[in-house]
Amino acid sequence: MAAPNATVHRAVVEHLVRQAVYRRLGKPLPRMASGSSPLVVNVSARHCHLTQEAVEALFGKGHKLTPFKWLYQEGQFAAQESVTLIGPRSRVISNLRILGPCRTLNQVELAYTDAIALGFDIPLRLSGNIEGTPGGMLMGPAGFFEMSNGVIRALRHVHMHPDDAEFYGVKNGENMNLRIGGPCAVNFDKLLVRVDKSFKLEVHIDTDEGNACNLQPNTPCELVK
Amino acid sequence: MAAPNATVHRAVVEHLVRQAVYRRLGKPLPRMASGSSPLVVNVSARHCHLTQEAVEALFGKGHKLTPFKWLYQEGQFAAQESVTLIGPRSRVISNLRILGPCRTLNQVELAYTDAIALGFDIPLRLSGNIEGTPGGMLMGPAGFFEMSNGVIRALRHVHMHPDDAEFYGVKNGENMNLRIGGPCAVNFDKLLVRVDKSFKLEVHIDTDEGNACNLQPNTPCELVK
Repeated sequence: MAAPNATVHRAVVEHLVRQAVYRRLGKPLPRMASGSSPLVVNVSARHCHLTQEAVEALFGKGHKLTPFKWLYQEGQFAAQESVTLIGPRSRVISNLRILGPCRTLNQVELAYTDAIALGFDIPLRLSGNIEGTPGGMLMGPAGFFEMSNGVIRALRHVHMHPDDAEFYGVKNGENMNLRIGGPCAVNFDKLLVRVDKSFKLEVHIDTDEGNACNLQPNTPCELVK
Repeated sequence: MAAPNATVHRAVVEHLVRQAVYRRLGKPLPRMASGSSPLVVNVSARHCHLTQEAVEALFGKGHKLTPFKWLYQEGQFAAQESVTLIGPRSRVISNLRILGPCRTLNQVELAYTDAIALGFDIPLRLSGNIEGTPGGMLMGPAGFFEMSNGVIRALRHVHMHPDDAEFYGVKNGENMNLRIGGPCAVNFDKLLVRVDKSFKLEVHIDTDEGNACNLQPNTPCELVK
């Protein structure tokens, strides 16, 4: 297994090449291309974050999550392990991916389409803000784990390093617009800005949002204050 | 069963009450409230339109669709009958609702979330424009019916009477913006205008679009040229 993020991400390479081409042609850089970071927009499919205690209840005592694919944010990974989520309408979602590393709370993030299919009435929440949200039952190969709360739709958001926040002229907690072009063009208002020194510039939208605008690798995207 | 659209739609009543309240208060009507029609925005869940020939193959010789619920557009209904759609990944969608009355072509309209789950790679098309689109297999209680094409994502659109088109200053085939407010606010660009004397003012978006913006009965909506 390669070390986390040992290779340079495709978006970073494209960003550098774009900057070099404009320089070579002697043309002024478009605003979006002049930032220090490329704009990466990723669709988060339904997933969960678990505590080590929940992992052990589901997969057995002492079990550790195994990285399957490293994500764009440093140190974050999709685990090989997945669980089954049992909903109130006797329907299940199997293969609900676990994202690692383990956290201090248990949280399931669904799109509304998933939630409606399962029978969950879930609120829109900032990740981590799960007080008063519905719970659910998870099933793994070694047992069940009941969450008393934590099933949410995550608020669409953009991760930013402080340098990116300065470039876009925004502060942590503010909102921006995300403009998606193409045949199913959409403007997402109220994209929450989250700033941290450990973050790389990356927008997270869910599958309802990603499918509404048919986001593809070559779909034009723009962040607007 | 009540005659089609024998009762006045809730949206029409609200529209008339809103106009009366503004008049009573002696206040000028907001632009949206001054049109002859209320703006109705409806989410179309996955469904199909069938020929009489397909209905008979699926439900038996001479079978006629039975209206289950009248839709907003005059004479259109959700039928009691539904079919099972079999996708290329050996997965199925059961209870795919048939909309009546029968048409001269067979067409299945899915959201991209549905299509991805089933394994269909479907194009974005104006309803009725199904040349070169993928087909699929339908299953009913009396047999199978194979569609050689017709599985699409329908282009988001607004039905308009010529009076509505005049009010909004648009023509058949043009695009408008649909602004949805609330906590998951979204602006849908490229909403296709379809004008016909038989149409009532109604926007159709699919479940990905409706869930992306969490469209609820009280969510503010606005049509902008």
